[in-house]
Amino acid sequence: MNTRGSAIPGIEAYLAEFVRQLPFPTALRSAIEYALLGGGKRLRPQLAWDSCIAAGGNGEMSLPAGAAVELVHAFSLVHDDLPAMDDDDLRRGKPTLHIHAGEAMAILAGDAMLSLGFHVLAERAPEHIGICLCRELAGGTEGMIAGQVYDTLCGDGGGMPDGLSDRQRLELIHRNKTGALIRASCRMGAACAGALDESMEMRAISAYADAVGLMFQVVDDLLDVTQPAERIGKRANKDAQAGKLTYPGVLGVEGTRKAVQELREKAMNAIEGLGERGTGLRELAEKMARRES
Amino acid sequence: MNTRGSAIPGIEAYLAEFVRQLPFPTALRSAIEYALLGGGKRLRPQLAWDSCIAAGGNGEMSLPAGAAVELVHAFSLVHDDLPAMDDDDLRRGKPTLHIHAGEAMAILAGDAMLSLGFHVLAERAPEHIGICLCRELAGGTEGMIAGQVYDTLCGDGGGMPDGLSDRQRLELIHRNKTGALIRASCRMGAACAGALDESMEMRAISAYADAVGLMFQVVDDLLDVTQPAERIGKRANKDAQAGKLTYPGVLGVEGTRKAVQELREKAMNAIEGLGERGTGLRELAEKMARRES
Repeated sequence: MNTRGSAIPGIEAYLAEFVRQLPFPTALRSAIEYALLGGGKRLRPQLAWDSCIAAGGNGEMSLPAGAAVELVHAFSLVHDDLPAMDDDDLRRGKPTLHIHAGEAMAILAGDAMLSLGFHVLAERAPEHIGICLCRELAGGTEGMIAGQVYDTLCGDGGGMPDGLSDRQRLELIHRNKTGALIRASCRMGAACAGALDESMEMRAISAYADAVGLMFQVVDDLLDVTQPAERIGKRANKDAQAGKLTYPGVLGVEGTRKAVQELREKAMNAIEGLGERGTGLRELAEKMARRES
Repeated sequence: MNTRGSAIPGIEAYLAEFVRQLPFPTALRSAIEYALLGGGKRLRPQLAWDSCIAAGGNGEMSLPAGAAVELVHAFSLVHDDLPAMDDDDLRRGKPTLHIHAGEAMAILAGDAMLSLGFHVLAERAPEHIGICLCRELAGGTEGMIAGQVYDTLCGDGGGMPDGLSDRQRLELIHRNKTGALIRASCRMGAACAGALDESMEMRAISAYADAVGLMFQVVDDLLDVTQPAERIGKRANKDAQAGKLTYPGVLGVEGTRKAVQELREKAMNAIEGLGERGTGLRELAEKMARRES
């Protein structure tokens, strides 16, 4: 039984095997493999893995959930990179999928990966929790899309509730755009261990997820300012050009560092009651707070 | 209890209510409503409705399944219309979503509708069949995407098995592109009535679905040739320009008419054993064979 450690070797093998056996046209499978395999930090599967352990399971039990959230994450990157969206040519140092395989294939392969997220749950998760996992995954996916709309298509306030401060607007964007799928990753991992909605474990892990989900984005904004050379830079420049809201823009650099520490503590406090089983989640929050790329 | 009749009033109200209560940004919800509501033949929900009745249920029981397949169908139309795909400006006589709301919104709203297909099942179908419905929906969605890849992106044979005749290639494309979601519609409808995978009803309805799914496309190809003025025409012209395989191209017009009749009979024979309960499916196959638009 694996009670700690990294989800990465397990999830890489799991995703590769899952995609390999699909009865897809070669060109479609290759496009999916290009976008999905051999790269990425696998943060979301790791959150599922550590949440599963924190709720009393073992890491392997979380793999269907980890594969599902990673498929949805990979789909979102492919569609975000499209010319009509962020128009990015590079992703993790290699050409984006629409540069590599054409725009039509990038749209279709992204669509397929979204469907595959639900497919892997329906086929491989234990039957009695499958539908609960699908519900969480749909919530995470739709939150992410809603956040993207708030962030990029509601510039004139169309669709965002009135009367919010800049900080509240930022929080609404990022609790959806990044936070919703991170929340789903954690809750799905816990559900794989059998944690029920109303359980102490599920409530603790959800509160942890809400804190680290937002922290992830706050750190991201901070790195765009403090490490511009290490970042691709394109995004940061674009955001500045577009006059987009960012945490350093609203809180200043020091205020943003403080916000990171507050969210880190919030995450730690949320899982205090899980004791030893929460070690993986604690280490992950620490790593997310300190990351430099 | 509704044992016959049209799915349309029920499905229209169901979809409208489902979308209205989603916690989405206004702009995203409006885009989804634009693409999803107030148009379309609702063929797939009708197939789910009649399949549910054929398997011993009533029409209302099929509504979550009908909503799911219509959401996926609507997503596929929005993405198919995009500039990088078919580049269509009109759909059902009004501007396509990317013309109406911009390309980024069309990509995102399409993505959201795909997720919502699974969401409506996870939230509204009876708990014990939810995961079976999700499995069918994923299969239908991925088949449709695979068919699209075979049809538009494998022109040089990349990905299509070697050694197929033109007719076999056509069948492979359309059994996936149109057939897979039609099959899912029928099987999901039957599952809503409690039909199990290995049951006589499920086998009969699956065979029916395979026949009408292919027939739908054969009729479509035929209408492009025999009723070019009534069709938007653009597609038919494009297909001709691209030298694309079509049934009249391979079988001639008379051969294509014969193929329609053979598939119609195949569908009728498949559900002979369902007796009176199969009346709705029989009428629908008849209507699909005779349609003129």
